[in-house]
Amino acid sequence: MNNRLIIRVVGYILLVEAGCLLPPLLVALVCGEIAWRSFALVAAACGLLGFLLSRAGKNRSALMQSRDGYVIVAAAWLALSLFGALPYVVSGAIPHYIDALFETVSGLTTTGASILTEIEHLPRSVLFWRAETQWIGGMGVLVMFLALMPRLGGDGAVHLMRAESPGPIKSKLTPKVGQTAKILYTIYLGLTAAETLALRIAGMSWFDAVTHAFTTLATGGFSVRNASIAAYHSAAVVWIVTVFTFLAGVNFALLYAAVLGRWRQVLRSHELRLYTALLLCAVALVAVDLHAQAGQSASQAATDAAFQVVTVMTTTGYSTCDFAQWPAFSRMVLAALMFIGGSAGSTAGGIKVSRLLIHLRSLRRELGRIVHPRHLSVITMDGEVVDESVVSGCHSFLAAYLLVLAAGALIVGLDDLGFQESFTASLTCISNVGPALGKLGPAANFSILSYLSKAALSLEMLMGRLELLPLLVLLNPATWRDR
Amino acid sequence: MNNRLIIRVVGYILLVEAGCLLPPLLVALVCGEIAWRSFALVAAACGLLGFLLSRAGKNRSALMQSRDGYVIVAAAWLALSLFGALPYVVSGAIPHYIDALFETVSGLTTTGASILTEIEHLPRSVLFWRAETQWIGGMGVLVMFLALMPRLGGDGAVHLMRAESPGPIKSKLTPKVGQTAKILYTIYLGLTAAETLALRIAGMSWFDAVTHAFTTLATGGFSVRNASIAAYHSAAVVWIVTVFTFLAGVNFALLYAAVLGRWRQVLRSHELRLYTALLLCAVALVAVDLHAQAGQSASQAATDAAFQVVTVMTTTGYSTCDFAQWPAFSRMVLAALMFIGGSAGSTAGGIKVSRLLIHLRSLRRELGRIVHPRHLSVITMDGEVVDESVVSGCHSFLAAYLLVLAAGALIVGLDDLGFQESFTASLTCISNVGPALGKLGPAANFSILSYLSKAALSLEMLMGRLELLPLLVLLNPATWRDR
Repeated sequence: MNNRLIIRVVGYILLVEAGCLLPPLLVALVCGEIAWRSFALVAAACGLLGFLLSRAGKNRSALMQSRDGYVIVAAAWLALSLFGALPYVVSGAIPHYIDALFETVSGLTTTGASILTEIEHLPRSVLFWRAETQWIGGMGVLVMFLALMPRLGGDGAVHLMRAESPGPIKSKLTPKVGQTAKILYTIYLGLTAAETLALRIAGMSWFDAVTHAFTTLATGGFSVRNASIAAYHSAAVVWIVTVFTFLAGVNFALLYAAVLGRWRQVLRSHELRLYTALLLCAVALVAVDLHAQAGQSASQAATDAAFQVVTVMTTTGYSTCDFAQWPAFSRMVLAALMFIGGSAGSTAGGIKVSRLLIHLRSLRRELGRIVHPRHLSVITMDGEVVDESVVSGCHSFLAAYLLVLAAGALIVGLDDLGFQESFTASLTCISNVGPALGKLGPAANFSILSYLSKAALSLEMLMGRLELLPLLVLLNPATWRDR
Repeated sequence: MNNRLIIRVVGYILLVEAGCLLPPLLVALVCGEIAWRSFALVAAACGLLGFLLSRAGKNRSALMQSRDGYVIVAAAWLALSLFGALPYVVSGAIPHYIDALFETVSGLTTTGASILTEIEHLPRSVLFWRAETQWIGGMGVLVMFLALMPRLGGDGAVHLMRAESPGPIKSKLTPKVGQTAKILYTIYLGLTAAETLALRIAGMSWFDAVTHAFTTLATGGFSVRNASIAAYHSAAVVWIVTVFTFLAGVNFALLYAAVLGRWRQVLRSHELRLYTALLLCAVALVAVDLHAQAGQSASQAATDAAFQVVTVMTTTGYSTCDFAQWPAFSRMVLAALMFIGGSAGSTAGGIKVSRLLIHLRSLRRELGRIVHPRHLSVITMDGEVVDESVVSGCHSFLAAYLLVLAAGALIVGLDDLGFQESFTASLTCISNVGPALGKLGPAANFSILSYLSKAALSLEMLMGRLELLPLLVLLNPATWRDR
């Protein structure tokens, strides 16, 4: 292991975090909130520690290997979470550290599950930081670091990028990693600006528009209002958020292709087609269920279904209604969508649509083998052969996902809230959705859980966001043995 | 496809079924029940149709291929289920055909979920047939056919055996398939006789002892009493059933090795070790939970935990208490065990412990690849290399299992019984356990479900028992296209 390199990059990441703490500091100063002191203090601490670590790890410049990339990403996210929780504690917004950690991890991993019972009384700077953690975590902090300081990533940049960005196949937009990171952040910033403007025009205040744009594009789902999107009583807001949430669940490489006018590439994408088809099917099924079983009017059922299905499948987790009260069928549809999640290379969680696609094709191949035992066949996606190591990686990922899901559900089970609550709390956290069902639904929050459950779910959110491997590599003793 | 061969073997299987209808006919005659007419009628119909089909398919004797094996097994089980339901309908014990089909499939697949609300009022011959369906389905009807008529299986016997017996790796006990089938049925019969005797000594009537031995060794779980094993108020009965249930969840190849005195092979089996370790862990966890959270006495908690954990993990599904009322943690443990199930080559359902083992080792290999990217490694079990096609088969199996599980849960969701009910009804059926949780727990039954749900769950039970492939091959259009 290249320990010095790890220390150095973690140092850089803390410097990035210190920088990220400046906008809420500014918000506090503008709004005249006393919380500015907390942000200044934590930013100074992060900056100092980051500077020292980046110095301490400097003198050797060895090659970065794949495993170093995973360990660095895991260590960076742990550091970000541990320090990111401090402003909540220092400002007194969330007194207990585990609660603050849960809220921070929920933010950075773009989950959106909250332990806060009363959001609107919090200082605006704290709410801004809460929304900003999602925006940072959405596209990824190492991607941000590579976009800002491409040279510091060095030869290992590709390993960092691979370890942090989601999905089985990592598409390179350009040969240079730094350039790719810049393009991704440019699209991300552009969409955020566009949604902010749209929400402002639809009647939100600038503050509400910016924070909701942050948490939409990150598929995070934190809102500055207790009632989430329902608080605005505006169909325009609902549809703006629906559209941008949908876009945030699309592979950003395809959004880039669309920007370049390569529509053929966009429309031919198998993942995008399946993602859209699943969304449309789910909206139709839920709308019919809400109309037929729950007795909603057709238009209300269609609007609720469209908004909630998109927000849940993209693992955003806003709410316009309490879907924990929906009939069982609609809740099962939501749970299935939570598991699947959005597209690879988007800011969404879940196992990703492209993995589902690889599983389906792998299954078709298995059946084909029985019909033609001597026939060799490969799995393709968008006309290209999917490497067998990617296929087996997908398979192991599914097994590991289920194991972590089960472990989380067992731990939450100790709180004895119920079967539905234990299972969906674990599912919503590993898939980075936000609300669960039952007593942990969109109208409730996670404050009723024990600290053990909160700590376990925090770890699970991190595992889900980083797609398991970085934390598993970090925890694997073999990683730390030298050859 | 070798259609004539399929027709011929299905014919033979109907002849076997006609034979299997004779014992309940005898029971009806001995007890003076009018139901003897129903059994005689259905046996005659099965016998006649079986004879005609076996004649009709006779003249060509082509080679049986792997896919033929799968299609034959699927077709045979469908025929068995469709005809096996008739005695219930004709005798009037279960008036509606879909209900009768559900009960029959639940029997043959050794699931043990029931739509009957009042068991003890049924004729003894019907109860005997209900228990016997489980015994037949436990070891498999094609295995029985191969044991009885080894020459009729011909060259394709190995394909039939492979398609019907559970688990990723099929162990050959002897080079000859017919011989293997005979050994398996001999052990099965021996254990059934031993348990019957033990239960008789513990105070059960001969009838109760035989029927419970049938459903224990098959890991089925049908009881002739409404209160299941709790009806006997006997610790001896509870422990006898626990021990034999445990044995029924062990690979019968290992039981054969034990009979031959090859203890080293038995004790070295990785699957047996993991199976035992998981059981012991689960018993300990549930016992502590029942004692601490539900306030049961230590001895009561230990007995309940041991019995229910063993009966659920082996997918038998008897009950000595209403575990649907247990705290959430214990219910989550049971749900996890339902998913895993017993050992390969046993009569138990679930994904099987050996598949879990392959998934865990595959995951370890994936992590190892990150540390040593150029290191090639294989997965081993019991000191032997597991072929990569078996590993990828396991992986596809898991994905397909989840898809079927989700589809079943969605369909049951339409009945709007609740999240826990929809999910665990689907889980208990695909894993062939029996009781679900909540309103479908051991103290309740499946009669409250719609006919759509009952039909869907029947299909799911068959898919679970046959480990998906036979029915998927049957339904795959490519199977029916000639090359």
